[in-house]
Amino acid sequence: MNRLNIGLIGYGTVGQGVIKMLRTRENFIRNKFNTEFTIKAICDRSIHQKNTRGLAKTNLTTNYLEVINDPEINVVIELVGGMHPSYEIIGGALRSGKHVVTANKELLAQKGEELFTEAKKKNKAIYFESSVGAGVPIIKMITEGLAGNKFNAIYGIINGTCNFILTEMTKNNWTFSQALKEAQARGYAERNPALDVNGIDTAHKLSILVFLALGKSIKLNDIYIEGITHISHVDIEHAESLGLSIKLLAIAKRVKNQIEVRVQPTLIAKDHPLASVNGIFNAILIDTDPLGDILLYGQGAGQMAAASGVVSDLINLAARNNSPSTIMVGNLFQDISTFKLREIDQIKTKFYLRFMAIDKPGVLAKITGILGEHGIGIASVTQKESKKSSTVPVVMLTDLATESMVRLSLQQITRLSVVKSKPVAIRMEKL
Amino acid sequence: MNRLNIGLIGYGTVGQGVIKMLRTRENFIRNKFNTEFTIKAICDRSIHQKNTRGLAKTNLTTNYLEVINDPEINVVIELVGGMHPSYEIIGGALRSGKHVVTANKELLAQKGEELFTEAKKKNKAIYFESSVGAGVPIIKMITEGLAGNKFNAIYGIINGTCNFILTEMTKNNWTFSQALKEAQARGYAERNPALDVNGIDTAHKLSILVFLALGKSIKLNDIYIEGITHISHVDIEHAESLGLSIKLLAIAKRVKNQIEVRVQPTLIAKDHPLASVNGIFNAILIDTDPLGDILLYGQGAGQMAAASGVVSDLINLAARNNSPSTIMVGNLFQDISTFKLREIDQIKTKFYLRFMAIDKPGVLAKITGILGEHGIGIASVTQKESKKSSTVPVVMLTDLATESMVRLSLQQITRLSVVKSKPVAIRMEKL
Repeated sequence: MNRLNIGLIGYGTVGQGVIKMLRTRENFIRNKFNTEFTIKAICDRSIHQKNTRGLAKTNLTTNYLEVINDPEINVVIELVGGMHPSYEIIGGALRSGKHVVTANKELLAQKGEELFTEAKKKNKAIYFESSVGAGVPIIKMITEGLAGNKFNAIYGIINGTCNFILTEMTKNNWTFSQALKEAQARGYAERNPALDVNGIDTAHKLSILVFLALGKSIKLNDIYIEGITHISHVDIEHAESLGLSIKLLAIAKRVKNQIEVRVQPTLIAKDHPLASVNGIFNAILIDTDPLGDILLYGQGAGQMAAASGVVSDLINLAARNNSPSTIMVGNLFQDISTFKLREIDQIKTKFYLRFMAIDKPGVLAKITGILGEHGIGIASVTQKESKKSSTVPVVMLTDLATESMVRLSLQQITRLSVVKSKPVAIRMEKL
Repeated sequence: MNRLNIGLIGYGTVGQGVIKMLRTRENFIRNKFNTEFTIKAICDRSIHQKNTRGLAKTNLTTNYLEVINDPEINVVIELVGGMHPSYEIIGGALRSGKHVVTANKELLAQKGEELFTEAKKKNKAIYFESSVGAGVPIIKMITEGLAGNKFNAIYGIINGTCNFILTEMTKNNWTFSQALKEAQARGYAERNPALDVNGIDTAHKLSILVFLALGKSIKLNDIYIEGITHISHVDIEHAESLGLSIKLLAIAKRVKNQIEVRVQPTLIAKDHPLASVNGIFNAILIDTDPLGDILLYGQGAGQMAAASGVVSDLINLAARNNSPSTIMVGNLFQDISTFKLREIDQIKTKFYLRFMAIDKPGVLAKITGILGEHGIGIASVTQKESKKSSTVPVVMLTDLATESMVRLSLQQITRLSVVKSKPVAIRMEKL
């Protein structure tokens, strides 16, 4: 029988889900995995306001030091989130010889390399399945399931909040704010949704994936990040009529010895499997060599989805507890890559462009003229007839163009007297 | 550095792919996984007709006993396939204290329980990722990635040959034989395709998945198996017009303490992600608790796809070689389940039915009358007008009905003088 004593720090939604799952699955885990977990301690700053029925034998504390210094505890689960005191908790737990399970993508994105080096030094493991895609086993697939493969590209829908908002905007013809309100009402978005809708949360997760798949440590500042706040339902409609869907994609691509890493609303073909990933679901498409394309899809958010990833980590950890030094099959949290980051300016994609222009002859010629001067070819143009207003939307799909040329062109086009309001540019990706 | 000496038995397409991958990835594997593999021996009955350039230091033999008895070899890769001598090879390798990596679904389906018991006794591991879905890490996802989850249902497209044939029939309006010929021409079907097109290969793989996910050992005879040889492009067309696709699905479902296990051509909604799995791609959809639906999709056949699974097994094995007793996280190849198998006669699904009937008044009334007598409700009826012949297709979708009632009805309907040719019945599944 494998036995692990657990100290849980952070008894919020996910923490409570973990305890619930461990207790309802006690027999199942004992029988199937020959493993017993004992919940030795739970720490939360407001533990005394929480429901702790059935935890009479557990040390309930507000002081995390009691957990990380308890010699009987083998593994510390960190579910506080954010940078501090999570950084101190995980570092302290490792230094006092405990394994760590965490769902903290922000901390791993910023301090992963340091924490994993510490873990290695202490011969301990950090498991972090729930940090990306909740319980959907993306981390295990990349580090172990596809071991031996090289990774050419990653395309992920890895923020449930953004995907829910875009889905609702598409389905109901809603504005961003309407969809955000619905997400908040359903508990899918926080009161302050900035980290999600600005793409930062997606970038944290992407940087973990890039490290695991490409062995490259990247700083958040080096990732080109565009959120979804500027996406309008007008563009979703235009995209639909062109057979395209807008998704917030995390993209990492290897191009020779450079890598592109970016988070951005992206137009993809509607019949691509990623386009049908709706609501809070997450999906990740990986182009691997020699296996080819792999797609993994599942519920990437929610109390029990995240709890499921944490419990899976605990079971895997328990099964390998005897041999900690060989636990991390492919979790090389150290920068072994000589890849250079490719600047966003150099990245070529096709673009969807929308201009609101005055409906009179010669306007199209002026716009396409400027694009042409910058070497940007046009693949298609749609100019809708105006019903009520004097401006009409002009929608274009370009050929491959660099970010910098598009930006320059748009600056010039914005200055045209016939063009009203700021042009919209959304990148397209051929998956 | 982890070091493993390898003995490979079976140097056909996949075996050659494995050696190719191990050699081209030698540095990559050393750097990323801190692991070195040495190919000590390769056995094949026609080894001397094969290309063995660059294998000067490897013992090339036609006698597998030389491999399983070589004290320097740590792991035996069995890629012979079929029951014999694979059974003797794997048993012998385990008994002489070696780990085993295999892609042999037939052997594991029939003798898995026995072989895994032997492995446990000897404190050795059997890895078998490529036995289902080639290198797509289905086995690892079920046994480790989703550890702690309970499995409610599995729906798999796990035979590339059948899926290729159905895709080509749909795309080109081909008959089964036309599509089979194309599959053979492209190397996706064997000269004798019986095991694939009759659903037996799918059933082998399903029985492995049922064992891993539901802990139930099932005999091939206890699986209801229907192949795709009787699928006509007429039915594919009718299905399309009803918004449905036909896929050969491996299905296992838990219903209270019974499980349904079946392999059959199945009608599913065209907008379901499984419906867009085309060609030789495989996919598996698992309904888990508490994580919910998970879908994994990738190339489930081909030389390098299968080799990728074998190499991933080797890397995982090497990383845990120090601790063999705890290697198999959730691979409980022992029957722990008290589930009873549910007879196909008791299983209720909706049905697609097609009759070729004489085009005269009263025919529909007769057919629906018989169905009604057996308690089978009709959800929709389409009767196409005849253009050239005197018979017209009558296509019906039923409400939920048991297999036995449908079979009885069809027997009676077949005897009607207005019904020409044998009726077609294809089950539908709401995913």
